[in-house]
Amino acid sequence: METWDAIRTRRNVRSFDDRPVRDEHLDRIVAAAALAPSSMNEQRWAFVVCRDRERLTELARVGAYTDHVAGAAVAIAFLTPKADDVAERESIAFDLGQAVENAMLAAWELGIGSCHGSVYDEPRIRGLLDYPLEMTCDLVVSFGYPEDPASLAPPGSRGGRRAVGELRHEERFGG
Amino acid sequence: METWDAIRTRRNVRSFDDRPVRDEHLDRIVAAAALAPSSMNEQRWAFVVCRDRERLTELARVGAYTDHVAGAAVAIAFLTPKADDVAERESIAFDLGQAVENAMLAAWELGIGSCHGSVYDEPRIRGLLDYPLEMTCDLVVSFGYPEDPASLAPPGSRGGRRAVGELRHEERFGG
Repeated sequence: METWDAIRTRRNVRSFDDRPVRDEHLDRIVAAAALAPSSMNEQRWAFVVCRDRERLTELARVGAYTDHVAGAAVAIAFLTPKADDVAERESIAFDLGQAVENAMLAAWELGIGSCHGSVYDEPRIRGLLDYPLEMTCDLVVSFGYPEDPASLAPPGSRGGRRAVGELRHEERFGG
Repeated sequence: METWDAIRTRRNVRSFDDRPVRDEHLDRIVAAAALAPSSMNEQRWAFVVCRDRERLTELARVGAYTDHVAGAAVAIAFLTPKADDVAERESIAFDLGQAVENAMLAAWELGIGSCHGSVYDEPRIRGLLDYPLEMTCDLVVSFGYPEDPASLAPPGSRGGRRAVGELRHEERFGG
């Protein structure tokens, strides 16, 4: 799939069928995340790949909008270092956004849908994943084959997106 | 270009030749950013596209590592809303990371390189771009055709990247 087509057609998928994700496909999805650019090449991230059904069911309870995780073939929990400095936290979050977008696009090319899940109960996911005190986890992403194959077709509408012309300026704001 | 190949081979390019970026290619790069997923579909971003050489020269002075902007064919300044809440700032930064990665991958497929430039002097870039008080700008990204076409070839090394096996865990941290 051409890169532009992946970018243009990808959308979040919340319902998955029962097929597991092949190991080599999962390897590519994780590698895509790891290949993202990062500030000073610091790669401030780690990936916990979860496929055990009981664990996925537990992971679905870490947020208010994370039900989709229970039915995913795979969930990846994205761990980052804790930081006190606000600018550093923003920098870590920005880099993680690049990594997650890479993983989602790589999955989409393989016919695999994905959906973000924000962590609201960090102590709960820490208990499940048992990561070190100096790390934290704000995000779990579900992956799997869409229950409705039509989900893979290009969206028929802009999906509530603002027109590019509203967001784009030339040379200066308002230009 | 297949999506995986774009993800796998993309790297930052800091030196550009003199060719302008075609309008339709620039349209695609900006659209790619606008098509990124965002929390609650909030699309908390705006894009200021700069091609004027004097402006690019001025923009190159907003950071300590932004010299590359002076020689770019195009720079896009990414504007986001100001926020006091730290979690909201992280969320805005995460979404922006997804948008920037989309733009850089879409460019790469077109043979166009790109490089991040962190803004250190926000009042200076505000003066140049004249955006509203409630917005801010932390990032300018350069785009252009690589001065050295070999830059577009797949990197011969991991470029200082950690091995995926170091970053990946199964079911739980350390697993």
